[in-house]
Amino acid sequence: MPLVVQKFGGTSVGSLERIRAVAQRVKATRDAGNDVVVVVSAMSGETNRLLALGAELSGRPPRREMDTLVSTGEQVSSALLSIALTEGGAPAQSLTGHQTRIFTDGVFSKARIRRIDVEPMRSSIAQGVIPVVAGFQGLDAVGNITTLGRGGTDTTAVAVAASLGADICEIYTDVEGVFTTDPGVCKEAHKIDRVTFEEMLELASLGAKVLQIRSVEVGMKYGIPIHVRSSFSDAEGTIVGGNDSLESVVVRGVALDRNEVKCTIRALPDHPGVVARVFEALAENSISVDMIIQTAALDGRTDLTFTVTQTDFDATRDVATRAAQEIGAGEVSLDNSVVKVSIVGAGMRSHAGVAARMFRMLADHKINIDAITTSEIRVSCLVNQAHGDQAVGALHAGFGLTRNSQ
Amino acid sequence: MPLVVQKFGGTSVGSLERIRAVAQRVKATRDAGNDVVVVVSAMSGETNRLLALGAELSGRPPRREMDTLVSTGEQVSSALLSIALTEGGAPAQSLTGHQTRIFTDGVFSKARIRRIDVEPMRSSIAQGVIPVVAGFQGLDAVGNITTLGRGGTDTTAVAVAASLGADICEIYTDVEGVFTTDPGVCKEAHKIDRVTFEEMLELASLGAKVLQIRSVEVGMKYGIPIHVRSSFSDAEGTIVGGNDSLESVVVRGVALDRNEVKCTIRALPDHPGVVARVFEALAENSISVDMIIQTAALDGRTDLTFTVTQTDFDATRDVATRAAQEIGAGEVSLDNSVVKVSIVGAGMRSHAGVAARMFRMLADHKINIDAITTSEIRVSCLVNQAHGDQAVGALHAGFGLTRNSQ
Repeated sequence: MPLVVQKFGGTSVGSLERIRAVAQRVKATRDAGNDVVVVVSAMSGETNRLLALGAELSGRPPRREMDTLVSTGEQVSSALLSIALTEGGAPAQSLTGHQTRIFTDGVFSKARIRRIDVEPMRSSIAQGVIPVVAGFQGLDAVGNITTLGRGGTDTTAVAVAASLGADICEIYTDVEGVFTTDPGVCKEAHKIDRVTFEEMLELASLGAKVLQIRSVEVGMKYGIPIHVRSSFSDAEGTIVGGNDSLESVVVRGVALDRNEVKCTIRALPDHPGVVARVFEALAENSISVDMIIQTAALDGRTDLTFTVTQTDFDATRDVATRAAQEIGAGEVSLDNSVVKVSIVGAGMRSHAGVAARMFRMLADHKINIDAITTSEIRVSCLVNQAHGDQAVGALHAGFGLTRNSQ
Repeated sequence: MPLVVQKFGGTSVGSLERIRAVAQRVKATRDAGNDVVVVVSAMSGETNRLLALGAELSGRPPRREMDTLVSTGEQVSSALLSIALTEGGAPAQSLTGHQTRIFTDGVFSKARIRRIDVEPMRSSIAQGVIPVVAGFQGLDAVGNITTLGRGGTDTTAVAVAASLGADICEIYTDVEGVFTTDPGVCKEAHKIDRVTFEEMLELASLGAKVLQIRSVEVGMKYGIPIHVRSSFSDAEGTIVGGNDSLESVVVRGVALDRNEVKCTIRALPDHPGVVARVFEALAENSISVDMIIQTAALDGRTDLTFTVTQTDFDATRDVATRAAQEIGAGEVSLDNSVVKVSIVGAGMRSHAGVAARMFRMLADHKINIDAITTSEIRVSCLVNQAHGDQAVGALHAGFGLTRNSQ
């Protein structure tokens, strides 16, 4: 019998009415001849409510206690959904992280799953009882409750699917699937039917918030196709992974990331090790660097530009200023009026000149490019935020992503 | 170092402000040179909120799921109190039922504790970290979450104290202690300084709701004195158990139970086995019988009266009516206009004529007695509810329980 793992996010179980609707969907899937394992998030708002309680008691609450506190959210929704399922004629039982035996490392608030004991879920299925797993949580080697970080229930779901060798992992959310670009930015945006894991990884890390990036990594590693779809309709969503179409399109989507800050250090001495020292200092302070541009040396001096995320604005200014003094460089400036526009598509591998076409499209719209990075299946350009939406629209149309052109 | 177990009820941890106050009290106890283990209830209202969610989804929600659902209440308060304690300079860590390893039987919603593994608490104490145990919950032999029933956190606390061999178990609640009678019924009621376990058992079962009766049984069995006191003041409360005073008073308290229903079956055939058949039928339907009176036989027929609790009103009427037909008895009538007034005191053992004094006092007030039961340390009379408060006042004064007369 096919085995389907279904994950329901916070808005999908956000009220008792929604929980009843989810129960009907799960039952329909089972009645259609599948074994089903369900993974649930906390009811929407609940995790924030619990975090606020802890934060009110302490500016630096112990992370172990915060994990114990917030993990109750998923325990509640898993029990409620089990009640609704049983009431609806599909016997079900909740399984907390410790009952499912989802073992993680000991890093509270962002633990990583090490292994899942499939026996509790298998035994439940064998008795005709649907297991409803509390997502987002696990236990460490000494029995502490851990949580996987924001969006962790996606990771729980795909990891559960991988450990059970499920046929598919369905991620039910409040959007229809993965879009060619942000519909709020470009009206022409539309749902993508299929993306590869690699494309999804690039899209997820670029700000398409429908799937936690770690869950995509797990899906890719274990070859579990992920179906991202809406819990508010029966429409098909986006299949991530699964069988690729024979001929992949060149560009699958256009991403816009407003979270970038550009930092420039002027007049660095052009000596070996100077640039390395700057990035060592950033790494020591856990600041992740995205794009890097170094201008050619002039008079033995060079300018260095890199981008970081908005949350690291203050830390970057402090670290870069100290590093600049240390190495005898000039002025340090930060600029958060930039955005990153990216095109993503597995087809780029076999199609030459995609980057050049992108630069030409932007130039035709008189959009200046501050910096460029590329991967095998992605090209990203830093542009002024005033041109962000325009750039997305131009690329979306230019690479034939409007619905009629596909 | 002395070991103190402190239990805080729902109103004691009913808000973040109250949780901070509890943290200060726990820290003060530790700073005074004690090892402390804390046991907490859910924040007041939380258990009812969770029960209502489950009840809204199903008229008969699976008990396993309801236990998983409501047990989150204590998990939340134990984490919050641990955060407040750590913030206040007394490192603490929460322990859920499964982390404390409180093993129970598998009877959901009213499980009984089988054994407690002291190692997790001992290990926490040894590291200078105060264990904050989530009350009311445990796990069964196969790892399901169970709960102990209403007031179960008292039982958790005393059982934890017994398993650790604690010097005392302090139960913090929203009243000052155990009273000579209900202050709402008799203004002369006042706090009792000490009661024996047996007296407390009689008082608890008679409606003094300050302590769950099972916790008193555990305290008595393992010789753990229980100090019932207010979390809203520093005043001493009532010590249950502990060293008895040399000379015990005759009557320690007067209890009023408004929960009785009187059932009368008329004209039973006066044959062996007829009465037994009635009580067998009641027992088969899990109806607990309290008082029993059988009148002398007249013309080979006898009347049988017994009392049950209000919650069993409908079931009792049905069962008694069927049994009456089966055995060829007459009319069955139920009357819930009765209350039970009781006097309790270990001193009765050595003082003759206490029951007679009670009947005389009631007679002097022209209060008619419908039925009587006695134990070694208790005498109970069933009277009309119109005379309940008056009976309590008369006995409270008559047995010298007003403060000046002690």
